[in-house]
Amino acid sequence: MTTEHQSRAGRPRSERAEKAIIAATLDLIADGMGVAELSMEAIAARAGVGKTTIYRRWANKEDLVVDALATIRHPLPPLAGESVRDDLVALLDLARREAGQRRARCAMNVALSESDRSKRVSERFYKLALEPRRVAMREVLSRGVANGELRPDLDVDLAMALLTGAMIFFNKWGPEGDLPEDLAERVVDHAMAGFAPRA
Amino acid sequence: MTTEHQSRAGRPRSERAEKAIIAATLDLIADGMGVAELSMEAIAARAGVGKTTIYRRWANKEDLVVDALATIRHPLPPLAGESVRDDLVALLDLARREAGQRRARCAMNVALSESDRSKRVSERFYKLALEPRRVAMREVLSRGVANGELRPDLDVDLAMALLTGAMIFFNKWGPEGDLPEDLAERVVDHAMAGFAPRA
Repeated sequence: MTTEHQSRAGRPRSERAEKAIIAATLDLIADGMGVAELSMEAIAARAGVGKTTIYRRWANKEDLVVDALATIRHPLPPLAGESVRDDLVALLDLARREAGQRRARCAMNVALSESDRSKRVSERFYKLALEPRRVAMREVLSRGVANGELRPDLDVDLAMALLTGAMIFFNKWGPEGDLPEDLAERVVDHAMAGFAPRA
Repeated sequence: MTTEHQSRAGRPRSERAEKAIIAATLDLIADGMGVAELSMEAIAARAGVGKTTIYRRWANKEDLVVDALATIRHPLPPLAGESVRDDLVALLDLARREAGQRRARCAMNVALSESDRSKRVSERFYKLALEPRRVAMREVLSRGVANGELRPDLDVDLAMALLTGAMIFFNKWGPEGDLPEDLAERVVDHAMAGFAPRA
């Protein structure tokens, strides 16, 4: 009972510290700092907490970075499950909305760029933030192949690469600022219809 | 006459130095060093030359990195100009072949990851190594729209994002080692046919 009370009473302060630590980590990454250059000292200073407060929660820098990056990804949207096309648009629209946020863009950059240098960060980021989306997209595409909304010989892995890749492409090389609101829709519709003229 | 003779005589040694400097730069990048961490000292040491030899050729680190990265990209293949599909396959196959090379993968990572931190490197790398491919791909797609090999309402920018994005996707998250030899072909054929069943 006392323990529960204490932990409850302690939570607000520790939650505030946790938020400050996460915000500081993201700020430093958004300023262009790579994982290799980030230090617990810099994070603690920016967050206005002691290093021990950080270490009480995260055993090492990589764990903290992964948790921080995961907080800025939007949660998976509910999928209506009625139209494969609409569910694909909902999934890709996540990437479109995140592209407008400087921090989410940086997160993606870090996740993409650190893969050779700091395998652990990118693998854990993948598990936390990317894999659930991959799983959801694979399910939607497989459903479409099964129910005839997509062609029976569709290669689901290739389809995922085309759709996800297009969003990565726009995220990296698209116009500055917000991507067009209908981008996810147009990507899905182009992928569905194909480039060839209809016979 | 004398000048010409001198420059000819001088070339072999300076070419050797240039090659060693470029190789050293690429080795350090392949070891996971970011542009921010690379130093002219480290490059000189690795190449076995003096720093002045480097500065005689490159005014700064960024110029050297861009030139080094550009050397590992394959040149544009000749395009037969007969079938849009075949020309697209030839262009995407460049990315497939480069993905098998650790150094080219690293180059791509650097170009992708440094864009916020070191705009100059990524902009110049883009101009040197990516833009010619973009221009070629845009020409092939536009030709297809004009001659009926592609559908008349194709959005060429979107088509480029789907095709190029798919290759970036496999480059980043594809299986370790070489990508399947027919990957470019399959990406193009899937994009051409679309995901929807034929009416």
